[in-house]
This record gives sequence, structure tokens and C-alpha cells, in this order.
Amino acid sequence: MSKRVYILGGYQTDFARNWAKEGKSIMAMLNEVFDGAFAETKLDPKEVDSIHVGNFAGGLYNMQGHLGGMAANYSKDFRGKPTSRHEAACASGSIAALMARAEIEAGLYDLQAVVGVELMKSVDSKTGGDFLGTAAWYEKEAKGISFPFPKLFGRLGDVYVERYNMKDDVFAKYLAHISAVNYDNAKRNPKAQTRDWYMSEEHACSTGDYNFTVGGRIKLTDCSQVTDGAAVIFLASEKFASEYAKKHGLKLEDIPYIKGWGHRTAPILFDDKVEESKNGDWVLPHTKAAIEDAYRRAGIKGIEDIDAVETHDCFTTSEYAAIEHFGLTGPGEAYKAIEEGVIDFGGKCPFNPSGGLIGAGHPVGATGVRQILDAYKQVTGTAGDYQVEGAKNVATLNIGGSATTNVVHIIGRD
Amino acid sequence: MSKRVYILGGYQTDFARNWAKEGKSIMAMLNEVFDGAFAETKLDPKEVDSIHVGNFAGGLYNMQGHLGGMAANYSKDFRGKPTSRHEAACASGSIAALMARAEIEAGLYDLQAVVGVELMKSVDSKTGGDFLGTAAWYEKEAKGISFPFPKLFGRLGDVYVERYNMKDDVFAKYLAHISAVNYDNAKRNPKAQTRDWYMSEEHACSTGDYNFTVGGRIKLTDCSQVTDGAAVIFLASEKFASEYAKKHGLKLEDIPYIKGWGHRTAPILFDDKVEESKNGDWVLPHTKAAIEDAYRRAGIKGIEDIDAVETHDCFTTSEYAAIEHFGLTGPGEAYKAIEEGVIDFGGKCPFNPSGGLIGAGHPVGATGVRQILDAYKQVTGTAGDYQVEGAKNVATLNIGGSATTNVVHIIGRD
Repeated sequence: MSKRVYILGGYQTDFARNWAKEGKSIMAMLNEVFDGAFAETKLDPKEVDSIHVGNFAGGLYNMQGHLGGMAANYSKDFRGKPTSRHEAACASGSIAALMARAEIEAGLYDLQAVVGVELMKSVDSKTGGDFLGTAAWYEKEAKGISFPFPKLFGRLGDVYVERYNMKDDVFAKYLAHISAVNYDNAKRNPKAQTRDWYMSEEHACSTGDYNFTVGGRIKLTDCSQVTDGAAVIFLASEKFASEYAKKHGLKLEDIPYIKGWGHRTAPILFDDKVEESKNGDWVLPHTKAAIEDAYRRAGIKGIEDIDAVETHDCFTTSEYAAIEHFGLTGPGEAYKAIEEGVIDFGGKCPFNPSGGLIGAGHPVGATGVRQILDAYKQVTGTAGDYQVEGAKNVATLNIGGSATTNVVHIIGRD
Repeated sequence: MSKRVYILGGYQTDFARNWAKEGKSIMAMLNEVFDGAFAETKLDPKEVDSIHVGNFAGGLYNMQGHLGGMAANYSKDFRGKPTSRHEAACASGSIAALMARAEIEAGLYDLQAVVGVELMKSVDSKTGGDFLGTAAWYEKEAKGISFPFPKLFGRLGDVYVERYNMKDDVFAKYLAHISAVNYDNAKRNPKAQTRDWYMSEEHACSTGDYNFTVGGRIKLTDCSQVTDGAAVIFLASEKFASEYAKKHGLKLEDIPYIKGWGHRTAPILFDDKVEESKNGDWVLPHTKAAIEDAYRRAGIKGIEDIDAVETHDCFTTSEYAAIEHFGLTGPGEAYKAIEEGVIDFGGKCPFNPSGGLIGAGHPVGATGVRQILDAYKQVTGTAGDYQVEGAKNVATLNIGGSATTNVVHIIGRD
């Protein structure tokens, strides 16, 4: 039985901001998100034992590596502490959380600051699309291809259409619903990038100048955003969490903990993924396995014990896959959950009450941390207008590449 | 008392190779180093529970991120396993080792593959120097400066000369000795990049066309190399190590383990480092603290219990600092150890029997792993021509940036 690792809260920046336009650097972003996180949690930088950074490509986007060292620059009280940066493409933030949690379980540290950060608007969208290609096998899947990822996740849609004999236009409608739900949810989230944007299911269904095709079957409304942003969570040992609870007039049971997690890697090439999954039940068997690992570690049966999901909707197709891989339906039947409104904000198991990557935004290295933070908010009843009533257990799924790295967390209270 | 984490060996590529010229990619390098590591240790990819990659800047040098996912591509037996990549500039390999060790201590996994990898000859030296600048605070310390790191480590030399009233030419001779020892040692190492290069202490003392100044007081012979290379080590729980020992007719006591480690972060700006250390005993107090942490965790008094050191000699000045920070002399007295031949191959405490970063080479993200591998070789008596006789405990120091991230490991047997 491993030790419990608690979440003491955190903070995210406003994902609607354009830090490049503001003339602010990634260091400024780190400073702001730490300021917010310490103010929000009433923790002190002195209390932090170690700092973990999730970041995908600061070297490319910002000519800045060594973001552990940069994060330590936030406060003189961080000097001398261990720092590190972790990367697994769009799952970088979750990897940082996994490493921080493991170090607490090993008994090394009592309080970990986990910060996910990405400043992407420093480059034009074509260049940014090329940089994102380094999350795939660049040489084979991205070099010379403009916007490789919409194409890869378009192919994920192709697999669904072909394997389960769906009609293109019908499938497109399900994707449009996913998009619309995410945009709708984002309107309730005061930190969401698209909270003031116009969007509707009708618009998501349309094709044309205002909703052009980005790659394959992926249209503009199927895509997550290019986002500047950062998020922090604090992870604590039972010892630290108990003291923290006492200090703030809480009971330890009031503080959420990481109930379960899963971490699996699929073949990096999308072709290999398709080939490997041909004779199995699931299109993304390693995503499925990461989810099942998390359920098992959390000691729960499955999705019936989960009240909401913050999933990786880099494109609508990845959320489509997530719906069934989480177990809301059998393989090839995600559309049923969509038709029944299960994933809607008022549904039985809302997906992305925050707005997800499509609505809330997707600062790549921050997303995994932001998901855990949103799960924390839901299970502590502090999600404000996007609160899922009575949420007790919330799951997150964060993927890197074309579902190559898969990380799941289950956050809850007893 | 934390659980023991054992080292079952590993493998490094020939650091003299130019993979870019060979037309080989970073994936080819991963394939070769894993092939070598499994052959050398007689382990099977099936047995590996998780794969950790240390890499500094694959995004910049190779347009390839997500190297955890890439590493999983090595073998079908890696599919489904957890993977991650870790970065702290030139200390990336050590960070990967720290995370892998922590996960074993947490009881999560029994066998970890840790691979450090960097392919740097893909770009010209000026571009490469700029990329290396992202290990510092790029905007403030590197942007628009050609070869920022020789200049930063030249300034480390300046601090020594100023703070301890040394004469420039006398100090230069000590640095030349450090350089010559590393080059000499490298000649005994069949994987060292400079093993066939001409070098002598006389040459290192000279200045001119054949030993020009790169930045500040740093001459060509003071610099580590630009290197393509990778290294693997396998870390194991006591359970796995016991079974492995039995299978291979060894006793568990024959297998080295990680006796101690330290991990500390200094202010990222070199100016802040200088300012902070002004009133203390040591030029690099956080490097010192990381070393002391490792001694304490290993339960040893200090350098008197260490038989050899694999240290971070990105430049001769960093090795100069390491000599005294490891405790061979008091502050400002490293030159005494140099004069007395303590660090020479036949000396009381040889530094960099492998040749270090100057002699063996410095594929940035691989260096921390290579150092641990060399420590493993020394304490198992398998270092061949560069074996330090009777080595029982060996320490490593791996630093990122201008001594921003500091990681120390102590490897030994009982």
C-alpha cells in the first residue's frame, strides 16, 4: 500500500492572455503563477521541498531550457532546493506530477511544487505547428508537413469511421457536439481562453471559410487552442497535509488526494498504433490500460465511480476516443454517450467542465497540471460556475503525441 | 532508511563517433545504446518496468522531442511501459537517474532503464553554442553572445583569481594540468572522444593559433567537447538485484548500489551566484551542499572515503572548483591538490579516470548517466585500462548551467 499524496490546491494563469504580445517572458509567467499559487493556498515558498516543471518545448518556443533552474529563480527561498523539468510532449505536466508524487511516496520530500508552463504565441502558427511536430516522430511523421497533428488526429477519426462503419457526416456531428460542449463549458470558466468567443454546435457542424479544414477531417472547431499559460499544484505527504489541515481549520479528510494513476506508452508512430490495435477490442489499447491502471490503483470499479472527467481533447477525435476508453460505452460506441448527453455539463459524467483543451486552452506543458488543478477544484467544491455538483472523484487523461504517452490521474476524497 | 537501489551495469556508445556524418538519427543512437546495454548486462527488454530518458535539447539539435516515446520504439517489449524524459541542461542524465531511483524507492518499479542521449553534431559550432546558451538564462546571459558558456566558466575562474589573490599565469597552469590529466586519462578509455588526439600539458599552457581563447580566460584546451553519444544504466530494486545476482552466479554484495546522492539548485544567473557566495566559505555553496548531502546519505565522512571522482569538467574551471568542493582541500586551495598530484590517474583520489567531459566527451544529456556507468565500472573492477585499483566508492558530480543544477551520486559496494 503506497503512501497517500495529497493536493493542497494551486493556481492557473488566465489562459486568454497573450504573453508574447504583453512582452512578457516565460520567467514572468513563472513568477505570476507562483505568486498566485502561494496566495491561493497560503503556503510559503520556504515550505516547498522540491520544484518540478512540466514543459514541452521551451527551447524551441522561447530559446529557454533548464526551466527547473529558471523556476528556482522565482524566490530566494527556492535557492538550494532540488529542481527538475520533465517532458513527454503534451503530457509533460502529468509527468512532472508523477515524478513529484513518486518522490513523496519514497519519503524524500513532504511538499512539492509542480508547475506546468508553456509560452507558445512567441512564434507564428505555421512555425508553432512545426514545433508541435517534434511530439511525433518528426522525421517520419511531421517533417515538411504543415500542421502534422490535426492530420494525425484526423486519422484517429478515420480509424473510427472505418473500423465501426460510421458515416462521415454522422461522425462529424458527434465531433461537433464535443466541440460545442467544450466551448459552452469554457464560458463558465473565468480562466478559459475561449470564454468570450462565439461558438455553437451549428457552427461546429458547418464547413467553409469560417470553419475551414485544418488537416484530414479536422476542422478549425475540432482543434484545441494555441495558448500561453501556466498552472501550479502543490502535492504533500500525509504528514505535511495533516499539519496544513490543522493550521487552516480543516480536517485531513477535507483535502483531496491522488487516489490512482496510470502511465503507459504506445508505439510512437501512428501507423504502428493502428496496426497494433487491429485485432484488439480498443483503438488505443495503451490509453485503455492507463485508465484501467488508475481505476485499479484507486480501488474503484470504473467510470461509474467517477463524477467528472478532465480529458485530453487536443482534437475532438481524442475526446471521442476517451469517452469509450474511460468505459462510458463499449468499443466503437462513444456516440451513444454523446447522443444521451452523458458528457454534457448537466450529464451523468460531464467531460471537461473546465472547457478542456478546446475551450479552456492548451498551453502544452501546463495542461496536465491544469487538469489536476481542475479536478482538485471539482472535488473540493471550489470550481465556481463550472462546478459539477457533488463531484467526489474526478479523473484526468493527459496524452502526449498521437496518444503515445498516456497519463491518468484520479483525484478525490474519501 | 530508504531502500537500496542497485546498478546492474549498462553501456555507452563510442563518444568519438559523429552520428550526423554517419547520417544516423537520435533513434538510431537509442537503438544502438539499448542493444549494447542489453547485450552487456544480459537483461531482457521484457524485464524493464519503466524507461527514463535524460536529454537536454533534442528539440533544438534534432527537431525531436518526446524522447520517452521515441525510446519506447526501441523494442516491441517496451510497448505499454511508462516512459519519461527529464532535463536540467548538462545535468539531464543525472535527473533521469534521480527520478528512476526515487520510483524504485517508492516501490513502484523493480527495473528501470535510464538512458542519456544527445546528438549535437547536427549543427555547426556557432549554432550549437547558441543552443547551449538556453542552459543559462538565455535572455540575460546568452542572447547575442557567441559561445556564452566558455565566458561564464571563464568568470568562475575570475572569481578564484580575484577572491584568492592568484596570479593569472599561475592559475592558468593549474587549469592546464587539469586539461592534460583529462586528455591523458582519455587515452586509456576505448570509448573516449579524444583518445587518439594529441595533447600535452605544454600545449595546454600555450596560447595562440593552436590554442586560441574561446571566451574570457577559457582556451580551447580548457573546454569539453561537442559530442554525439548515449549511455544506459539499469537501476534495480533489491528484489530484482537479488534474483539477477542468483541468475548470474553473483552475490548481492557484488552488485554496486547508489549509496548517496545530492540534488541542489543555485541561482541561475552567474551574477547572483557570485553575489550570494561573497560572504561564505565556498565559491559554489550549493554545489558544496549537494556533495555534503551525498556524503551524509552515504553515511561516509567525506572525500577520504572516496576512491575516485567522475566530475563535471565542462571547463577546467569547473573541475578546479570541484576539487575543493569535494573536500580535497579547503576553499581556495584546490591548487594544492593539483600540485601534489592527488587528482592524477595514479594519485590518491583520481579525478575523471575516464577522461571526463574534456577527454571522454560531453554529449550533454548523456553525461550524468555516463558518469554513473563509469563509477559502476570502477567499483566492479571492470574499467579496463582506466581502472583505479581497488576503487570501492566513486563519486560523480554533474552540473547543469553555470553550476545551477548540481547532482551528486556516490556509487559503491559494502
